[in-house]
Amino acid sequence: MKLKLLIPGPVELSYRVLLAMARPPMGHRTPDFEAILEECWDILREVFQTRGDVMIITGSGTSAMDAAVASAVKKGEEIVCIEGGKFGERFGEIARAHGIKAREVRVEWGSALEPEKVEEVVAESSAKAITLTHNETSTGVVHDAKAVGKIAREYDLVYILDGITSVGGDEVKADSWGVDICITGSQKCLAAPPGLAMVSVSERAWEAIDGNEERGFYLDLAAYRRALKKKTTPYTPSVSLIYGLREALRIVREEGIENRVKRHRTMALATRRAAKAMNLELFADEKSASNTVTAIKIPEGLTDDDVRGAMKRDHGILLAGGQAKLKGRIFRIGHMGNVGYGDLVEALAALERVLVKAGHSLNLGDGISEAQQIFGR
Amino acid sequence: MKLKLLIPGPVELSYRVLLAMARPPMGHRTPDFEAILEECWDILREVFQTRGDVMIITGSGTSAMDAAVASAVKKGEEIVCIEGGKFGERFGEIARAHGIKAREVRVEWGSALEPEKVEEVVAESSAKAITLTHNETSTGVVHDAKAVGKIAREYDLVYILDGITSVGGDEVKADSWGVDICITGSQKCLAAPPGLAMVSVSERAWEAIDGNEERGFYLDLAAYRRALKKKTTPYTPSVSLIYGLREALRIVREEGIENRVKRHRTMALATRRAAKAMNLELFADEKSASNTVTAIKIPEGLTDDDVRGAMKRDHGILLAGGQAKLKGRIFRIGHMGNVGYGDLVEALAALERVLVKAGHSLNLGDGISEAQQIFGR
Repeated sequence: MKLKLLIPGPVELSYRVLLAMARPPMGHRTPDFEAILEECWDILREVFQTRGDVMIITGSGTSAMDAAVASAVKKGEEIVCIEGGKFGERFGEIARAHGIKAREVRVEWGSALEPEKVEEVVAESSAKAITLTHNETSTGVVHDAKAVGKIAREYDLVYILDGITSVGGDEVKADSWGVDICITGSQKCLAAPPGLAMVSVSERAWEAIDGNEERGFYLDLAAYRRALKKKTTPYTPSVSLIYGLREALRIVREEGIENRVKRHRTMALATRRAAKAMNLELFADEKSASNTVTAIKIPEGLTDDDVRGAMKRDHGILLAGGQAKLKGRIFRIGHMGNVGYGDLVEALAALERVLVKAGHSLNLGDGISEAQQIFGR
Repeated sequence: MKLKLLIPGPVELSYRVLLAMARPPMGHRTPDFEAILEECWDILREVFQTRGDVMIITGSGTSAMDAAVASAVKKGEEIVCIEGGKFGERFGEIARAHGIKAREVRVEWGSALEPEKVEEVVAESSAKAITLTHNETSTGVVHDAKAVGKIAREYDLVYILDGITSVGGDEVKADSWGVDICITGSQKCLAAPPGLAMVSVSERAWEAIDGNEERGFYLDLAAYRRALKKKTTPYTPSVSLIYGLREALRIVREEGIENRVKRHRTMALATRRAAKAMNLELFADEKSASNTVTAIKIPEGLTDDDVRGAMKRDHGILLAGGQAKLKGRIFRIGHMGNVGYGDLVEALAALERVLVKAGHSLNLGDGISEAQQIFGR
């Protein structure tokens, strides 16, 4: 049975993207393939809102986080990592794995960062760079990436923004926010197949990269820049995935990035309203709730299997569970990429039925009616 | 126009593999996806001829070369890299990029390695590991990987074998040859889409990896082993590519690995015989000529465009050019993956016509007749 995916990636793909991948691969060092890469780079610059270089790495989103940190920061130097979830913490792990000193800004899981606390840690540090996971998928929180950009500029830090689950689904303005390295993944809001990571790099970041002599090899961003100048990639790219990415990016351009962000916001608001009407508690503070994934507490007395297991078994819908210390405590609804009204109303309707069956107190129809008010605005 | 690929990767894919990729992605942390990964791992162990762990990295073949070197060898330690072509040399570049001292065994491009020269360098070194590119795609040479295995065992070195263009197309026996880390890429002899790298790791290599504290992050093989124990991957894998890989591996198993190697050898022999009958000179020593790619000198007075340009323009066939210092001096015919009699005879027939048109002296039909003798044996 084909499960319907409402998880924070991989997301459902358009048939256009799926069929694009079924096209026989072409030689990757040919003018025809250069033209495909150029079309991707062009649309990616729009999506990232940057005039800087944008590169495509064959790898998971984590490969680009690794590339950014290890290319721009020298071993032994310091980096400030804003935490508050599994992915924010990953930056610290990456830094330490490369012998870089990570100084953490602790943020309570589910809460938004406080800029003054970030500045406090930065001011005490001798950091060369700062990292932020813009949209923290593990907790369903979106952070104020613009505020961190101001601090980065004031303290002259290379600002690395993980936009893996925000780029293409929420507002991201790499250049005007002062982001130096912006990262995204293919299988999230862009609704492309998993396996590609995209990175934009500012001139300021290139200077830091050029000044670092031990950048590794496969994930050395400087190699991608050298290749970019020759309209190619440094190593054989996944031609099949790039066919899929190009088609997905064309769809993004057809919808328009502003419309797309608006759609994501509507889906997120409808999900939150519906959840509350179903007598559920949101995990994240509503004022900083993510527009691409919603984290909901599993009601007292119910198990993960009562909710997610039943959604899968009885309705063919896959939701995401809690990660790390949130395992068994929350479930997450991904509404990123192509998720539309129909998908969401189907999932919310199923969720109502699953919750009632598990003994949770709610009036059938209350959740979807609330969502409907948002859809109908 | 769809060009026919006779390049050393990406190769032509079966329609079964192409359609597999058009399947909608599933959640990657699900029992259904675990079953797909397990099927891939099983067949890969057969293909590598190993009982050790086999892992799949989302990345180009180079990502696995990088992972092997940086995971198994500490910064400041020494590694012996057997060169003799662009890919053999890449190991040295990777080592140096990680602060590892690379001691090269120089092999003339186009010639086979001499085991006694390898041993000489090893004996003088304090190396912990040794690397070999089994099939050097840039020159069309296959090296004696078994002989290097003996040296590795004698001197207790971690033996890293790049089998990117041999595994699945030529004989590779990781365990019995004493290979500790064996690497391959998806888009070569296995005829899967580009974007995945596969690595087998022996117990001896795991010891070296465990003893190394600074292994990086995305390409740290230890993270892949921890995930393997939970039947998963450490980061979101390219679900779409793994659908394609699984189908390609099923095809490999249906053909049988011995039959597959035999087919590659027949194609290679037919190509070499045909080339000589066309009055062309092979670049590599015939006794160590590759079974998956054949390098041929561009005849005196002809240009790369006279040969490869005309093959593409007039016949829709893409051949590979020379790389690095061989640019413009050789062209290469890839006969790896699914290439069969029909594909090869078409390409050789076109090559005869292209050469005659460019003024090269040969009798039309001589090349394909020679190939036919090999096919008909």
